[in-house]
This record gives sequence, structure tokens and C-alpha cells, in this order.
Amino acid sequence: MARVTQEHLDARRRQILDGAAICFARNGFHATSMQDVLKEVDLSAGAVYRYFSGKDELIAAIVAEVLGQVHQGFEEGARSTPSPPPDVLVASVLDQVLASKASLTVDGRPAFPRLVIQVWAETLRNAELAALLAEGYGAVRDAWQRIVESYQDAGTMRPDVPPEHVARTLMGSAMGFLAQQALFGSASTDVLGDGLRALMSVPDHSSVNVPETPPN
Amino acid sequence: MARVTQEHLDARRRQILDGAAICFARNGFHATSMQDVLKEVDLSAGAVYRYFSGKDELIAAIVAEVLGQVHQGFEEGARSTPSPPPDVLVASVLDQVLASKASLTVDGRPAFPRLVIQVWAETLRNAELAALLAEGYGAVRDAWQRIVESYQDAGTMRPDVPPEHVARTLMGSAMGFLAQQALFGSASTDVLGDGLRALMSVPDHSSVNVPETPPN
Repeated sequence: MARVTQEHLDARRRQILDGAAICFARNGFHATSMQDVLKEVDLSAGAVYRYFSGKDELIAAIVAEVLGQVHQGFEEGARSTPSPPPDVLVASVLDQVLASKASLTVDGRPAFPRLVIQVWAETLRNAELAALLAEGYGAVRDAWQRIVESYQDAGTMRPDVPPEHVARTLMGSAMGFLAQQALFGSASTDVLGDGLRALMSVPDHSSVNVPETPPN
Repeated sequence: MARVTQEHLDARRRQILDGAAICFARNGFHATSMQDVLKEVDLSAGAVYRYFSGKDELIAAIVAEVLGQVHQGFEEGARSTPSPPPDVLVASVLDQVLASKASLTVDGRPAFPRLVIQVWAETLRNAELAALLAEGYGAVRDAWQRIVESYQDAGTMRPDVPPEHVARTLMGSAMGFLAQQALFGSASTDVLGDGLRALMSVPDHSSVNVPETPPN
């Protein structure tokens, strides 16, 4: 029997995950069969089942990989001093993720934003996937909260807003941007970076209302 | 035959739309049958088909109503002088929409955010719904662009960012916030308002790099 290198195993696993991602992005998780995945990756059932027991394992592996990638991007941001500003950080991590999935297409258009919507829809009826997503989302939110705390400690963001609220808002801006890509077509992540930068230029009106301490 | 008032017709139409929205939010558009809708609203087929020819008309009416509500909220923002700041405007329009749908629940949780995800998923495979969504999204984006232009004209937002990029980013922040509600549970729209307000307090680093005009 030929010796199978780790490199070969990894490449095969990658091939299966990418094929499954394309199938799920195209038709959704529910309407995709393992037969569809086998056909897409052009491998035998034996070759595929050696790596994954079925659709549930495939979607879990795909989701875990993407969440890990996002988490790592923001952990790097949390570790650097000072942390990059929010507009730069959100756009660059999103850019990395989109670039790593750029080869996956459905009808000639990027598959990744579609995949995200399909995963969200499946999450509504799949408790296991919901738990996985909540855990990964929590890890990303924790990293973001630490970044927000570093902005607040450095005096570059008002300190009276709970870091969790900022973390959720920034993550939401990226999630909404991905939804727009899926629904209305591609756009550069510069659009999101620009938009956040423009928001940062708006005077923070509410601070005007903070009563001043009367002079002694 | 009893005279049927317009009020009665409107209430019946509302009842059918709300029941269908609950069904779509619960199981998605594809897995919902007209039988499910009839059962949910507890009306005869004759009573329901008098108003809507089928699922496609129901989802179109639901989507058009919500997009109209969002559009109207931002049109009001565009008309007022000065326009409310972005954090206030996004949170208040989202709040209005969520409040108007608060009575619709699935398993005791708000149905509306789930409905949004289900509509997005269906949009990926339904060209008619995609066209409707793109049109409604375009109208909201246009209103937002005019609001952004008013910020820029008033000098409360940097003028060098295309209004469309800001519009997309603010709409994305609300879309992502809704996705978070569907996936991870409810949260007050104050979370989003706070997050945007915190962003507005961050110094706009990139303007530092604009070369100064040398003094004469």
C-alpha cells in the first residue's frame, strides 16, 4: 500500500471542505445531500467518509474553520500595541477571510457570503450548529471587547460605553456587510472601512450634554 | 349578505400577513405550505385566497411592508433639519420596526429577526423576491445617502467619503444587529446605538495624514 503523506491527507480534506462549502452555498444545507457533495468533489464515498461522517460534520468543520480564522485575526489585533483603529481592523480581517475563500464560486460569484446566509438559516433549526456558532461568536466578541478596552484605556474611545456593545456593533457591521454581498452583489471591503471611518469623523453629540463640573 | 367594512377587510389582511410571517419565521419559506398558513391563522382557504393567491404573494407583501416602514423612517430623517445623528436615527428606526412586530413570536421569542434571516435565505434562490429586496434596499440606501450628504454639507461628517459607502455601512450595522438577534437572542437597540456612538468618539486617524497646505 502506498504511503500517504500528511500533505496529501490535508489537501484531500481541503478539497472535500471546499466542495461541501460550494454545495451548501448553492442550495443550502437542508437541500444538499452527501451525493451532491461526492459529485462536487468527484471522489468516492469511501474517500469522503474517511474524513467526515456526514453533512453535520462537514458544516461544523466549515463553520469552525471560518470562526477560527476571524478569531485569530482579531486576537492579533488585540495583541498589537496600540491596536489598529476599528475601521482598519474590521476591513482587514474581513478582507483576509474573503480572500481565503475567493476561489470558491457559485454561478461565477463568490460563494462565501451566500454560505454565511445559508449557515445562519440552518442555525435557526439546528441546535448543535447554534451552540457551535454561539461559542465561536463569543470568542470573537471577547477578543473585540479587549480591543475596545485598549481603545478606552488609551483615551481614543469614550470610556462610558460597555465594550460588549461596541464589540457587537462592529461584528454586526461585518455581518451585515456580508449579507449585502450575498443579496446585492460584491463590493470591496473598502466600502465598509470608508463607512466606519466616516462615522468616526462625526462629532460625538451626546458628550455635549454631559454637565460640566462647575469650577471651584 | 352582510356588509363588510374596510376596517374588517384590513384586520383580516393583517391577521393573514402576521400568521404567514410567523410560519415563515418558524420554518422558512420553502418548508411552509399554504396549509400551514391556514392552520396558523385559523381561517378557511376561501377566506385567505380572497386576499393572497399563494405563498409568493404573502412573502412579497410582508417584505414590501417592512421595507416600506424602514424607508419611511429614514425619509423622515432625511426631511428633518438637521438630520438626527446616525446613532440616534439607526437605533430609533430599528426600534420602531421591532416594536411594530413585537406581538409576533416563535417559541416565545421575537419572530421578526428569524423572519429576516429566512427571507434572506429564500432571496438567494428566488429571483422575484431578490428583485423586490434590491428595489426596497435601493430606496432605503437613497434616503440614507441624502442624510449623509446633509451631514457632509453641515460639516458634521468628513466630506471625502462617498455617501453610498456610509449608507451601506449604517444599513449593514442594522442588518448585522438583526442577524445577531436571530442567532444569539434579543438585545435592546440601545446596544447598537451605544456602539455607533462609541465609534463616533474615536479620533479620525486618517485625516492626520492629509498633507497640510504650506503657508504662503
